[in-house]
Amino acid sequence: MVKQTLIFVKPGELRLDEYQEDDEPSETEVLIDVAACGICGTDLHLHVCGRIGPFKAKENAIMGHEASGTIVKVGSKVTNVKPGDRVCIEPHEPCWACNFCRIGSSNLCPYGDVSSCGTNRYGFFRSTNVWPAILCHKLPENMTLEEGTLVEPVACTVWAIKRAKLEGNDSIFIIGAGPIGLLCLMVSKAFGAGRICITDLNEKRLSIAKSLGADYTLLTTPGETSEEIAEKVKKIMGEAPDVAIDCTGLGPCINTCILTVQRGGKVLLPGLSASLSSVDLTVASLKELNLIGVNRFNNTFPTAIDLISSGRVNAKALISQVISLEDYQTAFDALKKGQGVKILLSPKHNK
Amino acid sequence: MVKQTLIFVKPGELRLDEYQEDDEPSETEVLIDVAACGICGTDLHLHVCGRIGPFKAKENAIMGHEASGTIVKVGSKVTNVKPGDRVCIEPHEPCWACNFCRIGSSNLCPYGDVSSCGTNRYGFFRSTNVWPAILCHKLPENMTLEEGTLVEPVACTVWAIKRAKLEGNDSIFIIGAGPIGLLCLMVSKAFGAGRICITDLNEKRLSIAKSLGADYTLLTTPGETSEEIAEKVKKIMGEAPDVAIDCTGLGPCINTCILTVQRGGKVLLPGLSASLSSVDLTVASLKELNLIGVNRFNNTFPTAIDLISSGRVNAKALISQVISLEDYQTAFDALKKGQGVKILLSPKHNK
Amino acid sequence: MVKQTLIFVKPGELRLDEYQEDDEPSETEVLIDVAACGICGTDLHLHVCGRIGPFKAKENAIMGHEASGTIVKVGSKVTNVKPGDRVCIEPHEPCWACNFCRIGSSNLCPYGDVSSCGTNRYGFFRSTNVWPAILCHKLPENMTLEEGTLVEPVACTVWAIKRAKLEGNDSIFIIGAGPIGLLCLMVSKAFGAGRICITDLNEKRLSIAKSLGADYTLLTTPGETSEEIAEKVKKIMGEAPDVAIDCTGLGPCINTCILTVQRGGKVLLPGLSASLSSVDLTVASLKELNLIGVNRFNNTFPTAIDLISSGRVNAKALISQVISLEDYQTAFDALKKGQGVKILLSPKHNK
Amino acid sequence: MVKQTLIFVKPGELRLDEYQEDDEPSETEVLIDVAACGICGTDLHLHVCGRIGPFKAKENAIMGHEASGTIVKVGSKVTNVKPGDRVCIEPHEPCWACNFCRIGSSNLCPYGDVSSCGTNRYGFFRSTNVWPAILCHKLPENMTLEEGTLVEPVACTVWAIKRAKLEGNDSIFIIGAGPIGLLCLMVSKAFGAGRICITDLNEKRLSIAKSLGADYTLLTTPGETSEEIAEKVKKIMGEAPDVAIDCTGLGPCINTCILTVQRGGKVLLPGLSASLSSVDLTVASLKELNLIGVNRFNNTFPTAIDLISSGRVNAKALISQVISLEDYQTAFDALKKGQGVKILLSPKHNK
Repeated sequence: MVKQTLIFVKPGELRLDEYQEDDEPSETEVLIDVAACGICGTDLHLHVCGRIGPFKAKENAIMGHEASGTIVKVGSKVTNVKPGDRVCIEPHEPCWACNFCRIGSSNLCPYGDVSSCGTNRYGFFRSTNVWPAILCHKLPENMTLEEGTLVEPVACTVWAIKRAKLEGNDSIFIIGAGPIGLLCLMVSKAFGAGRICITDLNEKRLSIAKSLGADYTLLTTPGETSEEIAEKVKKIMGEAPDVAIDCTGLGPCINTCILTVQRGGKVLLPGLSASLSSVDLTVASLKELNLIGVNRFNNTFPTAIDLISSGRVNAKALISQVISLEDYQTAFDALKKGQGVKILLSPKHNK
Repeated sequence: MVKQTLIFVKPGELRLDEYQEDDEPSETEVLIDVAACGICGTDLHLHVCGRIGPFKAKENAIMGHEASGTIVKVGSKVTNVKPGDRVCIEPHEPCWACNFCRIGSSNLCPYGDVSSCGTNRYGFFRSTNVWPAILCHKLPENMTLEEGTLVEPVACTVWAIKRAKLEGNDSIFIIGAGPIGLLCLMVSKAFGAGRICITDLNEKRLSIAKSLGADYTLLTTPGETSEEIAEKVKKIMGEAPDVAIDCTGLGPCINTCILTVQRGGKVLLPGLSASLSSVDLTVASLKELNLIGVNRFNNTFPTAIDLISSGRVNAKALISQVISLEDYQTAFDALKKGQGVKILLSPKHNK
Repeated sequence: MVKQTLIFVKPGELRLDEYQEDDEPSETEVLIDVAACGICGTDLHLHVCGRIGPFKAKENAIMGHEASGTIVKVGSKVTNVKPGDRVCIEPHEPCWACNFCRIGSSNLCPYGDVSSCGTNRYGFFRSTNVWPAILCHKLPENMTLEEGTLVEPVACTVWAIKRAKLEGNDSIFIIGAGPIGLLCLMVSKAFGAGRICITDLNEKRLSIAKSLGADYTLLTTPGETSEEIAEKVKKIMGEAPDVAIDCTGLGPCINTCILTVQRGGKVLLPGLSASLSSVDLTVASLKELNLIGVNRFNNTFPTAIDLISSGRVNAKALISQVISLEDYQTAFDALKKGQGVKILLSPKHNK
Repeated sequence: MVKQTLIFVKPGELRLDEYQEDDEPSETEVLIDVAACGICGTDLHLHVCGRIGPFKAKENAIMGHEASGTIVKVGSKVTNVKPGDRVCIEPHEPCWACNFCRIGSSNLCPYGDVSSCGTNRYGFFRSTNVWPAILCHKLPENMTLEEGTLVEPVACTVWAIKRAKLEGNDSIFIIGAGPIGLLCLMVSKAFGAGRICITDLNEKRLSIAKSLGADYTLLTTPGETSEEIAEKVKKIMGEAPDVAIDCTGLGPCINTCILTVQRGGKVLLPGLSASLSSVDLTVASLKELNLIGVNRFNNTFPTAIDLISSGRVNAKALISQVISLEDYQTAFDALKKGQGVKILLSPKHNK
């Protein structure tokens, strides 16, 4: 059977190539038969704009970092997985030796910046891929390979919510009901949050949020100011929330978080955007807020798997569609139009 | 002897009034013979612009919140001080009953916003003043009344540095060598900081910083970008600092902090300014920073007194001049020109 | 109707008195018509032994601190409740002014030690009682007065679990399936715990634990050593738990917690006992454990009410019986025999 | 020149052997010419009793883990040090891959338990030794090799004090003025502690403590109870201390810490002993203490070097004597008699 790989050519242009031979795993690597790989907002940004934040897509890069698959072959020193194992993958490879890795912040390892999917290593929009064994996590029997693609975004969200150091029953305000917003909703509920209010410009996404446990939803309109939305949210929730989570990366939304949250509260920043944000840091100081940056995941794959496997996080609910790798254009077009929540590309769905 | 009080008329205009009779302290209050009161950057802003951040100076307000004096009279239920005691004062009066007060965040008490110096209560640019006894702190014998005026800014700084949860030997970068910057330098040294680098546009202030223990100083020029300053600081310090403290309240300076600080580091925001700040929150997320707002002081007066009294913080070094209350215009003019660090107004220095 | 009050005479002896006139509430107090009051393990200890830990029951003391009732009369300055309101009560009255209260640790206020139920103030094993208004919390419409008696033990548990600073999905081991153990189970689940194992000598209590969500239960026998139980628990759970909670106050059980918990883990100590405990602190050091003392509740009544009202904590499930205040002896006898979980005394159930 | 090595034969018996050939370093190891190695309390315990806590000295083990020396030879992949470099050594070798290492707790790595000095690897009571390069830290020019032997105990103390999460100006009580107690004194001062009181049975050690900055010293006598000492300390300090540090590992001393420390305070446990401790955990609960276990060091070597090199910790003051490796018996005898603080064994001092 023909193997395929999706290649970034330039902003707005991708190309599907075929290949025959798999790369050989080194003694600490494995070869994976890819089952599916989710398209992340980052992939979309990179595909369309060629960059996100300080990161640029390199010519001929292969993206895709929300992947699952089956182990085909293992290197001679691999002990944690064996051929036939169904796994999900950690897409970031730290050095395990720098000062950041040593203190448990491998997500901040500078070496990791240049060794993750789509940079030094191939990403998973491919039929097969070679990957470090230690970054492969076995899926429990009750989890499908499709659910397995959601482990990475859940692991990112678990890390974000851990960074917030939630106290039991904290009330939460979330801006943006896309995949990250919906996962923040589910993970913070699972981790003991109290009332949660979520806003979006898209009514459909809010109704998914409602079905996934949001206590309050608020449909906003493009013209509304941060001040107006902040007042509405406080009114709906009965009081200012303890924690606000921006899942958009947009300055005005971050500012809405600052204006909405309780004195002494926290604003969590898992979103990424491309430019300077204009925010009211005087209010942030007077209210004595903590603005908390979040980058990737940090030893949170096992917890993410537990949350999905035990049903505490309904990952499946986010999968709008599984599309064959060949039909990648359909998938990217749908996302550009804001259709669907999470779309998976699967080499197994090729004709 | 004639008693005097300095009154805010409108932006740019103050008026000195005389009065004969003192207000009578209630059963939990005391009457204080004011020794001196420092002019804070906030006072200057309010005087010149009529506002700072969301706070507006009210017509006929009496400012001044960095005060010391001697107790003249005490209410019937007062037990913590007695006539003749030399004290410094906490200028913020919380309600002690709201949810913020109950969890130990009396600095965030909304009632306090409207009951502090210069709002509901008179401030201390006066000959005498009535004040809640519980907010008066006795000065140790080895501290002068002039040093006593510095307890409030030291208490603010102690609170700021506590909010940063310094780890021993953390390296620190401070922007702004005015009173708050210099106090951050001294308090963080006293609390276990490692190497400290401080920048300013004013060479004189940097030389004071050097004499107070700064390991590195960097004179910046108005044209320099945040990126340029960040690179210089990292080079001087040998590595990115663990903590950055903005003592200016200016967007570009806060952005310099974000660009300079270590991955996983902290940016402390004790400065206040009047408008939106344009800062790179994408970098803040990718570096997983914590941006930490700070508001006033929080049960830090006893520690501030200890630090000054034991010599760990050389508060006296910040006092550039003591000027008679009558000559207030001279004092404000000097500060507007950036002359001096801390200037005190003293009714005792009147002719 | 005759009003009654239950009085501690000496260890092992209580007496029921009648009274006609209610005390008059001061301007900040309320008069409460008591609906019911739970018997706490502390009450049982005090009743039987006359003391618990350093606390001695005073002659003629009136105990009872897990109470609910209806407001009958309010003092002139009371604004938070009105006649007819159904409330539960905070039984500990801090001074709101000492160093502990000021930093948000009113549960440690030394004044509170001598001003709580059964010491300076009457407890709630009475038909009516006068209480500070600020320590009364309104019950939501969907909560019964009987559930209202559980708010205090839930608030204690919420505080205990907050002290543990749970991270999402932390696995937990609980010794003792009495009221506090069962509440620790429910509250930690509600606050994001992962797998929970609970042990007891009493099979009936374990079956309640199972029905309330325990993932694993282990019946222990009096002869087993701490080492043996530790090994069994680790085997059942698949790995050492992140947090261990001792709900017995007994040295060997605390030692079992130390031996069972993960390296770097936490041992929570909500239990109280009467003497020195013999525990392996060398193991605690080598495993770098945190042993965390817990005392009462701390601003956790609103969260406790939320948890019960929203169904996240099934408080009702703990109420074994409601017995008339007159039949107090039946209730204490049942508890001495280890029958039932939580028994309420109700003056409303008198004949 | 003849090379020597000190070997543990059985409790109470050591033997000095000679050897000619050095082991060859692997590609990631280095060969070190040992300058000196301090005798730790653990070494003394192991030598005398053959065990400490759960650790047993193995026959033919070579102890010594507070070492400095000069690099003689480096493996082919070593980049951080080169021949001629003066270094101190981290004596604990973690796996860098387990769950503990990954979250930044390499000091708890179970692999490390069996791969440290005197277990799998030779310790440093030898003329030369082979060691992983990554565990060697270069000494600054202004530090002597003798001071270099103190880096390990300082790194342990830095970690202990970090575990205590000191707040600036916290008052501290230390039991035991041996090497660890004196280092806790110096490191906590350097990290922002306020007043410090230290007790010991040995007047000479207290006078060293005084000279190193102790604010208060208290000579205790063997008959005194924990209660008596606690009362004395609180009287001397004027109030209960915020943090108590037991540097003895003895149950009654730990209990004194519990009784002495402030409500809400911390008891730090860097000491190790061999058996069950009998302590009042009811008081620990009622006062809501945190008892904090401490094990080894954790990425604290760079800070320890900084503290010594900058003079903030006067390590040299602890070195009572440098004795030739040949005269080991003299050294151990002196320590058994409680003479001296820190004694170094040096192969360079051999005749």
